[in-house]
Formats: sequence, structure tokens, C-alpha cells
Amino acid sequence: MDLALTNAQVLTMTGDGVGPIEEATIGIENGDLVFVGPTAEFDAGQADEVVDCSNRLVVPGLVNAHAHMGLTMLRGGAQDVPEIEWMNRALAPLARYLDADDQILGARLGVIEAVCHGTTTVCEYAANVERLVEEVYDPLGVRVVATETINELADERDDLGPRDVPTLDRQLGANALERTERLFERYADHDRVSVTYGPQAVDMVSPETLREVTRRAEENDRDVHVHVAQGERERLQVEARYGSGTRSVDVLEETGLADDRLIAAHLHDATTAERKRLAEAGVRMVGCPSSIAAIDGIVPPVLEYVEAGGVAGVGTDQAPGSGRHDILEEVRTLAMLTKCARTDPRALPAWQALRLATVDGARALGLDDCIGTIEVGKRADLAIVDLDATAMVPAVETPFHTSVPNLVSSATGSAVDAVLVDGEFLVRDGVFVHADVEALSRRVNERAKAVFDAATDDWQAAGSALVDDASYGRL
Amino acid sequence: MDLALTNAQVLTMTGDGVGPIEEATIGIENGDLVFVGPTAEFDAGQADEVVDCSNRLVVPGLVNAHAHMGLTMLRGGAQDVPEIEWMNRALAPLARYLDADDQILGARLGVIEAVCHGTTTVCEYAANVERLVEEVYDPLGVRVVATETINELADERDDLGPRDVPTLDRQLGANALERTERLFERYADHDRVSVTYGPQAVDMVSPETLREVTRRAEENDRDVHVHVAQGERERLQVEARYGSGTRSVDVLEETGLADDRLIAAHLHDATTAERKRLAEAGVRMVGCPSSIAAIDGIVPPVLEYVEAGGVAGVGTDQAPGSGRHDILEEVRTLAMLTKCARTDPRALPAWQALRLATVDGARALGLDDCIGTIEVGKRADLAIVDLDATAMVPAVETPFHTSVPNLVSSATGSAVDAVLVDGEFLVRDGVFVHADVEALSRRVNERAKAVFDAATDDWQAAGSALVDDASYGRL
Repeated sequence: MDLALTNAQVLTMTGDGVGPIEEATIGIENGDLVFVGPTAEFDAGQADEVVDCSNRLVVPGLVNAHAHMGLTMLRGGAQDVPEIEWMNRALAPLARYLDADDQILGARLGVIEAVCHGTTTVCEYAANVERLVEEVYDPLGVRVVATETINELADERDDLGPRDVPTLDRQLGANALERTERLFERYADHDRVSVTYGPQAVDMVSPETLREVTRRAEENDRDVHVHVAQGERERLQVEARYGSGTRSVDVLEETGLADDRLIAAHLHDATTAERKRLAEAGVRMVGCPSSIAAIDGIVPPVLEYVEAGGVAGVGTDQAPGSGRHDILEEVRTLAMLTKCARTDPRALPAWQALRLATVDGARALGLDDCIGTIEVGKRADLAIVDLDATAMVPAVETPFHTSVPNLVSSATGSAVDAVLVDGEFLVRDGVFVHADVEALSRRVNERAKAVFDAATDDWQAAGSALVDDASYGRL
Repeated sequence: MDLALTNAQVLTMTGDGVGPIEEATIGIENGDLVFVGPTAEFDAGQADEVVDCSNRLVVPGLVNAHAHMGLTMLRGGAQDVPEIEWMNRALAPLARYLDADDQILGARLGVIEAVCHGTTTVCEYAANVERLVEEVYDPLGVRVVATETINELADERDDLGPRDVPTLDRQLGANALERTERLFERYADHDRVSVTYGPQAVDMVSPETLREVTRRAEENDRDVHVHVAQGERERLQVEARYGSGTRSVDVLEETGLADDRLIAAHLHDATTAERKRLAEAGVRMVGCPSSIAAIDGIVPPVLEYVEAGGVAGVGTDQAPGSGRHDILEEVRTLAMLTKCARTDPRALPAWQALRLATVDGARALGLDDCIGTIEVGKRADLAIVDLDATAMVPAVETPFHTSVPNLVSSATGSAVDAVLVDGEFLVRDGVFVHADVEALSRRVNERAKAVFDAATDDWQAAGSALVDDASYGRL
């Protein structure tokens, strides 16, 4: 056995609750969990390295089920504007000046930030995602679900109204499918990289390509990840393209995508009945609480989806708008929002929030055979929390484990002390092992200054509400 | 001059926005701000100590305008239960086993946590608050508004229904008033300690005592801090005591309390019209976002109060339910909740959230003549933020300051690197100067184990929803 973590409080997240074990040992060999049980039943002599985890809590590595890490360099660049302005008038004028290297650089910082806050798996959604895998996720040792964006919008559409139907170029879809197939091939045997199809949204991909994705997903039993029912703009576009009364969920069903291979992000502009149909069809959903609250002023319907029998995870979406890549902050935010949306303090309790961040996130990404819980046979993706960190205090085990609410509502990711993926430490004693994070932060800051400088004229010309804010000394 | 902080990005919070200055220097003498302006206009030779704040952001020390720090040892002890259960069936069975020393010990950790997250002023609300001032706030060097609880409820009321009127004992009120007067005398000349009257709520104090508080407050121009319109229980109690149709705000008005000396906490069960009346009367309010969201499932009406022309601050209330004492987490939470309550992403933007945490909090506590902004003549209460901390990246100054949204939505209090009160460092290089925080956390953890152990039978007998949760392995 390579490594044993002894004397820990463990939330295994097995069963229907949080599966707590006290005074527990976790044994790891070749990246697999080979022992999970009371320290008293464990022979420490078996392990090459023994790490005493007294006053430590071990939970499954957290799952960020939907993220665009390439936008991290624009954090703080677009928020507090009307939803209709966010993309085109606030974010886009900056994003236009972000080149591929900037996206990689920012993503590296975003992924490291996520990992330092306990995340071990990220579902990355990007065009040309291969470069992010190759230059960020794989060298950093982080588990990734690489989702290659398929988008057939042919041209910049600044002049088009929300009901105008832009041209779709099926060649763009074919190229993206090609890139995706190359990814499937390249990472077929990679333990930490899996791949899914990423048709961006049903109004941005032709029905022919959507059907082709369905065919290929069925043929090879692969997953498909789509942004679904994101708001008014999408609703109008779908009606304009498919006819009055047709909605995003209808298009998913008609193109054969609405089955248990589908991961649907957002769903806040779907109806309760539509969400129920999707849940019953085995579609998994991902909600992005801070992002959708900040950009749309909407509470993601995660709890409703779970109550309808669906599987759901959470994601950080992108840093502009929502903030840091911290999955525990996301489930804290979701819990507070959901309680207030229902005027019910019992809604989305800590144990359920923690399940969304771990085992449910793993199910949402179809990775629950290898991650999401702490049990023998799964991979050793773990987050270790310091129970003497102020925000985790007190950490009692009788008559219940205060670590459950304190991790979600108080500490969020700030008390994470160590993180392992496949049994290897990525974070140890609070420090990311494989990178000089401070130097990286400085590089991102320097490069961001150049990007924002270059974008200044365009940003001002776009005239979002932020331009006024800046002129009034509010920003 | 004792100290100069040079080359900083500063949000002075003066004017109507955030009052940004780049490449700024802050000069401090005898705890006062004596220079605030461009580094280019400052002669570094004037200062005994010069601290280079390149890549640092300086903001006014944050104001926690309502906190019961003595409950910190019970963090994680009561949440995710119906509001009606929270106090009596979840918190009280544990709180009964918390002695005065436990409250002091927990409060010390809570206050240190608050300070490490940028808070320099706490409005502490407690019975026998003198001991907290003497043993926690004053020795730690933290600014405090000491609010002595006045409560005339004579007996434990477990057997009484929500419409039964318990006996009020005016002698209890007289004793509490005596304690308060002693505090006013003792701390009359203390720079960091101010005192207010604390009638707990209008259903817990007789109208005679409320009028006596009004008389004394007017006579000596002192402030009064009351929990107002906290929910159904209070509403029923007020009706039962004062007659059908009488409400908390009516009682405040009839007893003369509703004027510009009053600080009203919560107000979520007041009507919009009542809140408008209070705002117009000059009453200041304090909202506690995480606490009221977690315990009541309600969004505090802070933005509405500000829009009605009122002054408002925010507080962390108590750790059980809401989590850590981090004022930036509070304004982040409030912003997300308010955006969703209005389906308006423009509601409560970052600059306004930051004002609530600083200048507005100071106004809410009547301390805006000495704290809340960074300008010459005010006391040197400052929080210094590391702009290379991942959650603050990027930190650009053109075409606007990303530090404003990134401090609120991304970093919260986690990027605070140094904190000064009256020009003295309480936190430096991320470390609290005057206490061994890890040793303190361990002591609180040890003592909490004993408290929760002792309380186990009572807690189980009280039968809150958490008892089931624990038995199902959810807690």
C-alpha cells in the first residue's frame, strides 16, 4: 500500500446521507482506495507512507460539473448589469482581446484555485478544449471531463435582433465533431481525462448536427453536454428557427438527445413540466448558482430537479459574474437562495448540499463508478479539511457532526488543507504542489492589465451600465 | 508620523461611490489618518515606518453592525430546521450547557475570525456585555459598540404558546439599565469602546422600561439598538400584549423610540409602509443576510430600506445558522439574494455592497465621524487586501477597478492580508498578531466537545428535525 491517511473524520458520502466514520483510516494503492474503515482495524505497517489526519476531515474530492475556465482572466469584468447586456455589451468587448494564450494562462490559475478549494474534477466546456487539457489539466494532474464546444453560428451577430435567425454553417459543426472524435481517440485510455460532445445550445447548432451527435453518442455510449433553456434570447431564437410554440426541450426530444446520455446545464428557462420530463428521461442537470444569480437574478432549479427524481450537480460556470471557483461556495449560495425562494429554512440542508458537490456531481458527469464517494474500489480523489481552521470550529462528532454544516455554510473551500487526485497530493499543507501560484497570479495580473487596456475603447463604446458606474467612481 | 502605507490601490469610500485612488499613500499618526493622497505628493522621510503596499488594496476596516459572538462555540449546532424550531428545539438545548467562560472563549475565536476577514468594528449584543468587552474586545484591540441586552422575561417559557403572554419583571429591566449606565460611565473616554442601550425586542421589555430607555437616550444623546419585527412569534406576542392590530413598529413609535437614535435589527416582518416610516424618522437598520436566509428563509429588506432613504448596515448575527463572521461574505450573500428576489442582476451591485460593509455600517452605528471611510481626520481602521491572492486576480485599474467586484463576489474576506485598528496592526502578513489562533481553535474544539456531549440527552429530547437527520446519517 502506498499511502494511509489515519485517524481522520471521514464523510464517505455513501448511502443516502453523508456516511460519517470517526477515527477512520483510508488506504491507497496505485491511486485506488483499498481500505476505508476504523483505524483500529488497520495495520499501519502495511503502508509505505502514513499521514496522521487527527483533527482533519476527509471528504470526496469535489466535482465542478460545468466551467469555462478560459474566462478566468476576465474575473470582475462583467457583473451587475442587466442580463441582456452581460454577454454582448459587458463581457464580449473584453473577451475579444483575450487570445488563446491568455485563456490558457487564466485557466491555469482558475483550475489551481478550484483545486486549492477542494475540487478534483472539472467539467471543462470550451472550443479547442484539447489545448486546455494538454497545457492545464493534464500537467496539473486534475481530473477533467473535456467538452468540445460545437457551435455553427457563422458570423458575429451584433447587428441581429433576438428574433433574427443567423445562418448556421454545418461545416463548423463537422469540424468540431472531428475535433471531438480526435479527443475521444487520444484520451481513450487516459485515467484522468474523459470526453463528451458539447453542442453549445439548440439555437446554435443545426438539427442535422444535433441528430448526428445523438447517433454517435448512442453508437459509442458517450455523453452529450448542452446549455439548455438559458433565457429569453434562446427562447426567441428557438421559436424563430423552429416555429412558434417550439421550445428548447422540444428540440432536444425531437433530435433524440433527451435521454440518459444528456447533461443539461442551467434549465432555468424551462418549465417545471419540461424539467420533470427531462428528469424522467434520465437527463442529468447542472446548476451554476452564483453565475445564474449574478447574471440573471434567478435561482437555479436544482432542488426542484432532484425532487423530480433527477440527478444534478453544480458548477462555477465562469469567473466574471460569479467570482471564485469554489464548489462549496456554490452549494452554500444555492442553499441560501433556495431557502429564500421557498421561504423554507429546511430546504437544501447541508447534507444535501454536500451531496451535490460530491456524489451527485459525479453522477451528473457519469463518473460515479470511479469518484464521488470514499469507498474501496474508487479512485483516491480526496479533499482534506483542517478542523482547527477557525471557520470549521467547533468540530464535534456527538450528538452529530458539526463539520457537515460548518463545511458548507461557514468554511466553504477556505479550510481545505490538502487535495489528492488518483492518490497523488496536488495540495499539501495548504500549498499547491506543482506550481508557483504567486508568480502565476502576478503573470495573470500583468497580462490582464494589457488586455483591459487594449479593450478600453471597445468596452466604452459598447456602453454597458458599467461604463456609467466607472464614470461615477463606483467601479 | 508613525506609519505610511505607500503605493496602494485605495478605495476611500468617500463620495457617492467607492472613491478609488491609485498609487496612493496613507499616513498615520497617533492612530489618526493624517495623509491620504497620491504617493507622488508624499515625502516618505516623514514616517517612522514605511510599508510598501504595491499589489495591495486598502479599504476602510469593515463594520459588523450586529453580532452575538458568545454563540460562536455552537457554530454548526442549529440550522436547516423550520424557523419555529430553531431557537427552542435546536439552539436552546445546546446553549443551556454553554457557561459564561464558554461564551468568552467562543467569542474570542469569533472576533479574531471577524478581524482576520477585515472587520475592525463589531456591534456586540449580549447580556453582561461588559465581560466580553473586558476579556475579548479591549485586549484584542478591536473597536466595539457594546450593547447591553435589556430583557424582562421572568421565566423559562417552554410551556407557553405563541399567544400566551409571559410575565415581565421590571426589576430585570432596572438591573440591566444599571449595568448599561455603568458601562457608559466606565467607557466614556475609551477610544475604541462605545455603548448603546439594548432593549432586546418590544415583546420582551415593558412599555414603561421602553419609555425610560427613550428618556435616558434623549437626555444623554445615546443610541438604542432593538431587534424589530423578527417574525410571527413576535407579531403574535405584540398583539397579545398590546391588543389586536398593534404591531412592533407601533410600539416603537408609541414609546418614543422610533427616531434617529434607534438602530433596528432585521425588520423583515415589518411592512414596506412601516419600514418607510422608520426610514423617514431617521431610524437606522441592520440586516443579517446569512442568518435570516438560513433561519427564516427570508431576504433581509436592506436594499428596500436604502431605497426608502434609510441608512443600513449588515451583521453576521451569530455563527449557528449563518456560518463564519465574514462581512464580505454577508454582502455577497445579500447581493445574490437581492438580485434573485427581484429577478434583477443590477440590484445591489458590488459598489453598493461594499458601502454597506464600510461607510454605511459606520453610519448605522453612529460612528461615521471616526470610521467608515479613508480620509484625513478619521481613525486609522483599515483592511489591506492582497491583489495577488488568486480570488482577487485580475486586479486592473483601467478602464475600471476589478478589485471592487472581485473583493465582494470572489475573495470575500479570504484575501485580507493585514488589518489595523487605530493605526495598530491586528493582522499582519495574514497572521493575527496578539493571539495563538491555532491553540485557541483547539481549546474551543475541546471545550465544545464537552458542551455538546453534556447536552446530548436534552438535545435529543427536544426533538428538532436535526435529531432525525443525525439518525439517518445526514449530520
